[in-house]
Amino acid sequence: MPIRATVWGENVHEQKNKAVAENYPKGMHGQIATLLNEDPNIKATTVTLQDAEHGMTEAKLDETDVLVWWGHRAHERVADEIVNRVHERVLNGMGLIVLHSGHFSKIFKKLMGTTCNLKWREGGDKERLWVVAPGHPIVEGLGEYIELPEEEMYGEHFDIPAPETLVFVSWFTGGEVFRSGCCYSRGQGKIFYFRPGHETLPTYHNSEVQRVIANAARWAAPVASATRIFGNRQPLEPLPARG
Amino acid sequence: MPIRATVWGENVHEQKNKAVAENYPKGMHGQIATLLNEDPNIKATTVTLQDAEHGMTEAKLDETDVLVWWGHRAHERVADEIVNRVHERVLNGMGLIVLHSGHFSKIFKKLMGTTCNLKWREGGDKERLWVVAPGHPIVEGLGEYIELPEEEMYGEHFDIPAPETLVFVSWFTGGEVFRSGCCYSRGQGKIFYFRPGHETLPTYHNSEVQRVIANAARWAAPVASATRIFGNRQPLEPLPARG
Amino acid sequence: MPIRATVWGENVHEQKNKAVAENYPKGMHGQIATLLNEDPNIKATTVTLQDAEHGMTEAKLDETDVLVWWGHRAHERVADEIVNRVHERVLNGMGLIVLHSGHFSKIFKKLMGTTCNLKWREGGDKERLWVVAPGHPIVEGLGEYIELPEEEMYGEHFDIPAPETLVFVSWFTGGEVFRSGCCYSRGQGKIFYFRPGHETLPTYHNSEVQRVIANAARWAAPVASATRIFGNRQPLEPLPARG
Amino acid sequence: MPIRATVWGENVHEQKNKAVAENYPKGMHGQIATLLNEDPNIKATTVTLQDAEHGMTEAKLDETDVLVWWGHRAHERVADEIVNRVHERVLNGMGLIVLHSGHFSKIFKKLMGTTCNLKWREGGDKERLWVVAPGHPIVEGLGEYIELPEEEMYGEHFDIPAPETLVFVSWFTGGEVFRSGCCYSRGQGKIFYFRPGHETLPTYHNSEVQRVIANAARWAAPVASATRIFGNRQPLEPLPARG
Repeated sequence: MPIRATVWGENVHEQKNKAVAENYPKGMHGQIATLLNEDPNIKATTVTLQDAEHGMTEAKLDETDVLVWWGHRAHERVADEIVNRVHERVLNGMGLIVLHSGHFSKIFKKLMGTTCNLKWREGGDKERLWVVAPGHPIVEGLGEYIELPEEEMYGEHFDIPAPETLVFVSWFTGGEVFRSGCCYSRGQGKIFYFRPGHETLPTYHNSEVQRVIANAARWAAPVASATRIFGNRQPLEPLPARG
Repeated sequence: MPIRATVWGENVHEQKNKAVAENYPKGMHGQIATLLNEDPNIKATTVTLQDAEHGMTEAKLDETDVLVWWGHRAHERVADEIVNRVHERVLNGMGLIVLHSGHFSKIFKKLMGTTCNLKWREGGDKERLWVVAPGHPIVEGLGEYIELPEEEMYGEHFDIPAPETLVFVSWFTGGEVFRSGCCYSRGQGKIFYFRPGHETLPTYHNSEVQRVIANAARWAAPVASATRIFGNRQPLEPLPARG
Repeated sequence: MPIRATVWGENVHEQKNKAVAENYPKGMHGQIATLLNEDPNIKATTVTLQDAEHGMTEAKLDETDVLVWWGHRAHERVADEIVNRVHERVLNGMGLIVLHSGHFSKIFKKLMGTTCNLKWREGGDKERLWVVAPGHPIVEGLGEYIELPEEEMYGEHFDIPAPETLVFVSWFTGGEVFRSGCCYSRGQGKIFYFRPGHETLPTYHNSEVQRVIANAARWAAPVASATRIFGNRQPLEPLPARG
Repeated sequence: MPIRATVWGENVHEQKNKAVAENYPKGMHGQIATLLNEDPNIKATTVTLQDAEHGMTEAKLDETDVLVWWGHRAHERVADEIVNRVHERVLNGMGLIVLHSGHFSKIFKKLMGTTCNLKWREGGDKERLWVVAPGHPIVEGLGEYIELPEEEMYGEHFDIPAPETLVFVSWFTGGEVFRSGCCYSRGQGKIFYFRPGHETLPTYHNSEVQRVIANAARWAAPVASATRIFGNRQPLEPLPARG
């Protein structure tokens, strides 16, 4: 059974910026879903901020194994109630892939517990993402690094918890580095942050970027294991009689 | 210069439960501060939920290197504004030691990004906290384990991010285990969760528990390093001229 | 294509101890291979210490995705040359699952860099392995814990590097705990240490133990990614002319 | 009581290469010890490969809290017996700081369990070491990064276990990155690998490099805690009578 990926798109730049619209005529979310659907083991659909409940209805989440998130300008327009709903889903096993400027999304900040702030610069940088975890499923099929001829720079310090697995470290022309592929587990859910993907650049047409996101969807898909059980519980072994 | 520790006490059980009041005539916070003050390198003071701004004024936080937190019944009475203030302080370097039922405090949940839920049971369990990180500064002066003749049971699953360093694992009579000493770093701050400390039991009169909390205060004290710098930044190396 | 698992058996107890022989008439390695072969995605074969090159010929390793290792009495009889060969294979991506007393095998100690020493006791302990990483692929299909009515006790301190992911923590009747499911990556290879499996007990007839080992084989199977490249290398970006 | 640091120098380049000798008239080890001795809390001495037992006598190790290691050309000339001795000391709490080409020392490879291989290039690269763990004691007193106008390039993939704490990531002019400050604990000992320090360059005259090594010595100094206890042990809790 294929992995059901839901691509959440903010869908704001696409409506306002001609360069973005030309770059991504189906929307960024549409393009990301197209990339994922080229993998026969993944069935990707899209929802957007503008949909009812931002597309994150309980029904849609019931059918979502992995949620892929791209947002930038409108993080504050995502309702807290929906963020809490997604948060609960992640803790109960739904995978979450956060892309690029999604580092500042409410859901990512809530899961990380930090500001998720960073340095940035638009224009003129090359990015080279070095693989530092060469046996990790997310780098399957890659070479030593991914090179993107132009990308927005993100630089350290990146205010995140230290990744459980650091998969990529980026080099930028302007002299910065960045932890650009970061794995986390929270509850029963897995989270992957992947840095590239500036809206005015053709990053989501790159086949290696495609590969990473598809690999990450497979890695982040839920594992069927015991529901976590909490609360007041009887002992499993006899306790001594109390005086 | 001694480490300035501020012990935050919820101070509710002490007012309502005679056993707690007799156990901790100075309040739990008072007793914890007394333990810390026996260490010549620590100067501990106390504040409580009932103080203005719950005692967490900007002025008080300016004088706090490490905040020690015990709460249980009144987590919801801590104002979000104060939680956000403490959160920011931790990210900027203030140490935080969260004790026992503080696992459900707003500040701990916010920093962890998870529910911090767990199993629990009162009555009849012995706890033995095994050291699993024998070179860590938090276990300085301890033996192989700490034994507490009676403690409330907390059992897995404990819904926290995997600790950066797991220092203690607890054994309980009733058949459960628990990750009972957990180190994290968030921003420039260090966080230590330490499990024992049920209000009706004399745990904070135990000299090994004292040792752990004092060691943790030293470990969590801030390090003077660069302010983290974020935002739009000029390149450090020349970028190619753009076409 | 199924995962090719090779089960390495020391095959000493089976020849000397009637209880072990009766418990495992096909040998412990034979029984472990039988468990794995019940999974349609795994094809398991066996080799033993007594085989030429201990069964770890280059040809056999060429056909091995995951090596499963059980040894106890004869660790010193494994030739260093073979240990080095297996070590190199693991760093180049072959998975390794080390069972029970294999903690003292040459290959595990070489990969860990520590003594891998521990406490132990035979007789009378129940073991309960609590899941502490509930979303990990190795716990797929399990409940909250695995209970083994009798097992040899292994206790902390277990002298290993802190696991990259700690999957199980064991409770023992006699008052000890143990980090009993430990994930590591080394080079391109993945390593899983799994505690249970005393030779005189029927542990490898337990369906949950079976499940864990099969899950671990899937988790540890190699990922096709770039060969790691080392050595003297030309720059990827222009260096300034030197004076 | 000051931390007793012993700086181990290979002392080969200094004898053969005039540039190195001029750069480090007291030897590289002598210069590193000089840096450390400027810290009033550290008392540093030196030993070299050429000393009896390479200077690593039991008596000298008895007086060593932290061992600092610089080697390059003569790793193979260090006797295995001495490597094993140092290994045991580290597991029992002695700190170890491995500098630059010491990545290929026998002791570092033995502790890591991997090849510790990497990419390298001499000449023309600037190195910028970005702090990625801004609250860590090893970065006390530093800014956002350390810039070294010229250094030998070391590039990924660096074949080490993922650091328990990654403190620095280096940027190089030629397009590479490197995990250049890596913390580990093994047994009761702490290990820090720090990348810079090519013999023909004045790196060990840099005050920020000095700061890092001194900070690391403080961080790696032993903690007085329980001797780790192993072996066959009686239960701490009553076991059921056996049938």
